[in-house]
Amino acid sequence: MKPVKTLRVPGFRGAGMSCGLKKSGKPDLALVVSDLPCVSEVVFTKNKVFAAPVAWGKALKGRISTLRGIVANSGNANACTGAEGLRAVRDTAAAACAALALPKDSLLVSSTGVIGVRMPFEKIVDAMPDLVGSLSPDGILPACDAIMTTDAFPKRGIRKVKVAGGTVTIGGIAKGAGMIAPNMGTMLGYLFTDASIAAGDLKRVFRDSVDRSFNRIVVDGDTSTNDTAAIFANGACGLPPLSGDDLEAFALALHDLLLDLALMIVRDGEGATRVVRIAVTGAKSDADAEKATRAVATSPLVKTMVAGADANWGRVIAAVGRAGIAMNQEKAEVSFAGEIVLKAGMVIDPKAEARAVPKIKKEAFEIRVDLGLGSGSHYVYFSDLTHAYIDCNAGYRS
Amino acid sequence: MKPVKTLRVPGFRGAGMSCGLKKSGKPDLALVVSDLPCVSEVVFTKNKVFAAPVAWGKALKGRISTLRGIVANSGNANACTGAEGLRAVRDTAAAACAALALPKDSLLVSSTGVIGVRMPFEKIVDAMPDLVGSLSPDGILPACDAIMTTDAFPKRGIRKVKVAGGTVTIGGIAKGAGMIAPNMGTMLGYLFTDASIAAGDLKRVFRDSVDRSFNRIVVDGDTSTNDTAAIFANGACGLPPLSGDDLEAFALALHDLLLDLALMIVRDGEGATRVVRIAVTGAKSDADAEKATRAVATSPLVKTMVAGADANWGRVIAAVGRAGIAMNQEKAEVSFAGEIVLKAGMVIDPKAEARAVPKIKKEAFEIRVDLGLGSGSHYVYFSDLTHAYIDCNAGYRS
Repeated sequence: MKPVKTLRVPGFRGAGMSCGLKKSGKPDLALVVSDLPCVSEVVFTKNKVFAAPVAWGKALKGRISTLRGIVANSGNANACTGAEGLRAVRDTAAAACAALALPKDSLLVSSTGVIGVRMPFEKIVDAMPDLVGSLSPDGILPACDAIMTTDAFPKRGIRKVKVAGGTVTIGGIAKGAGMIAPNMGTMLGYLFTDASIAAGDLKRVFRDSVDRSFNRIVVDGDTSTNDTAAIFANGACGLPPLSGDDLEAFALALHDLLLDLALMIVRDGEGATRVVRIAVTGAKSDADAEKATRAVATSPLVKTMVAGADANWGRVIAAVGRAGIAMNQEKAEVSFAGEIVLKAGMVIDPKAEARAVPKIKKEAFEIRVDLGLGSGSHYVYFSDLTHAYIDCNAGYRS
Repeated sequence: MKPVKTLRVPGFRGAGMSCGLKKSGKPDLALVVSDLPCVSEVVFTKNKVFAAPVAWGKALKGRISTLRGIVANSGNANACTGAEGLRAVRDTAAAACAALALPKDSLLVSSTGVIGVRMPFEKIVDAMPDLVGSLSPDGILPACDAIMTTDAFPKRGIRKVKVAGGTVTIGGIAKGAGMIAPNMGTMLGYLFTDASIAAGDLKRVFRDSVDRSFNRIVVDGDTSTNDTAAIFANGACGLPPLSGDDLEAFALALHDLLLDLALMIVRDGEGATRVVRIAVTGAKSDADAEKATRAVATSPLVKTMVAGADANWGRVIAAVGRAGIAMNQEKAEVSFAGEIVLKAGMVIDPKAEARAVPKIKKEAFEIRVDLGLGSGSHYVYFSDLTHAYIDCNAGYRS
């Protein structure tokens, strides 16, 4: 799960720099752009309070599938900023496209950082010539650095997929330390590939992969106002559009990379020491199973239990019991790291809990709950809750 | 909000003792009983994983309105204990009723403590003669002490209501440090009154009061497996059944007492330093408003913000935005302790936040969110999230 040290995707160039949005002087402005036209797809936050760049991106509608890359800033979320915030997005996009000699609306704009503060977009506009001037095939790494907020480490990865006639590359960068940051941060994820792929196929495999990666991680349950995930495919590989087994191999590699990036975010969950996969099976429906996994993954009692490496399954089953789903406690089975601690709603093997303890002291493990009612299932990954989370979030902002 | 030092309710006697369920030797067995027949009402946890005493109590059905009091233990929740757990409840109830020469099923049984451990009810049965022998009119206080688990202080209170022809008394005891305890504790609340009141009236005013007190507090969002609230009215005041203005005065006093007890529980929320009332108005429906208040009250970002006395309203509005309700951010208004920090989805007065800061450093304050959509409203009280919560819950159980 370590960040890769090189990240080149044919036909893409990137750059990152400091334009003065962060008081610390750390990099805060990122650009990644394809030299060729792309097919693209973007997934935005479902929060009904959404930032100006999200509002602007949603308004792109059909053009969302022909974007060439991203311009993203950290240090300011441009959320709850009204009409002036939208203007800031429009001017940022226009400045970047002009400097690149691209048609307007060719780039996705994202912001992450403090909420409710006017976006000083003049700094971004002024920096644009320098940013464009420093674009390079190795520039995706500095772009990744420039979107970090409270992230303890950068999140990025690469996959190469063998297909008929050659190889295609998928590179990805992401940020987020639990969908949150001291000042309401965000999850951002960007994927770049030289694959040649039909827009409809890209949309389908990307949305499916996001649904099973970024949408299955929980640090604190607080969906951000700025979450955005996007993919750009420029066809620079020079091969015909992916189909059949090749498309499937691409989809698998994409999901693998997205899950890696998503797990890096959980692992970086503010103060997190462990990553747990909670899987619920035997529910009446998949929707019920999802409610149960999310109740467990957001329960402060469960999250502190994980931090303390305590196989306190009572907290897990009680969280499922309040999830508002169909349930009969006498049919419930719970296991920690493969040890069945509860069966038919009772303790059958009193020693199972003790056997589980060394296994849940590891950095990652699984909790399974089978409800014995039907075939509904779901899983999510979540982090634990430690003192460092309090330190990170109870501090005064300025 | 300080616990009263005397608590007598005419016609009721109580007792508390240690019967050996707690390793610490602290009191763990409580009994409160009326010398006269009562009308009664009980409200149980809605968690689908519920303890044996809850299952047993629910099965009492019609008899739930003629109970004479409670026998309750701490140190063991008798939850996830199967058929043997139910037997333990039955034998406990039978032993208590026999020692009191009451018909069987005259008492409510409650348990609170560790989950999934066999209930050694022989200890309770053996202790029953001593417990009954120590019953006294001043014994409601030691009964209150004997139901405590991680509570930092006992929760109890008394109200006297002037009615035509005299005065009626309502005494109440409760336990809970946030519906939770290191080993899955519970919220218990018991009310005793010498009022004469029709069963239907008691049911209505009690359920309504519980709905606006115990059901409006949030420490961690983790509903317990054992929550129980009960009221017993024995008519010892010798007055005719309450009606008209007297019934209304009784209902007001009952709600006032219940809210006091509920707020004591929030105030004792593990590690809590502040109590916040979150009120949502202008929602499309009351149900929407409730979803919004609960999203805010359980958000770790909001709870750490309260601990840090940071007027970080972005976290509040983002929690409302993910609550799954009808919302238009451009109509939203947020105030902290009366200072309007967000209006029409934007910062209108940049100094409002600074003005709010000294006000939210107090032990209690209010956050209001108006959605500007309709007439739906709701409020709940919640506690903050501090290091002490982690210490209390990440520790190993044994």
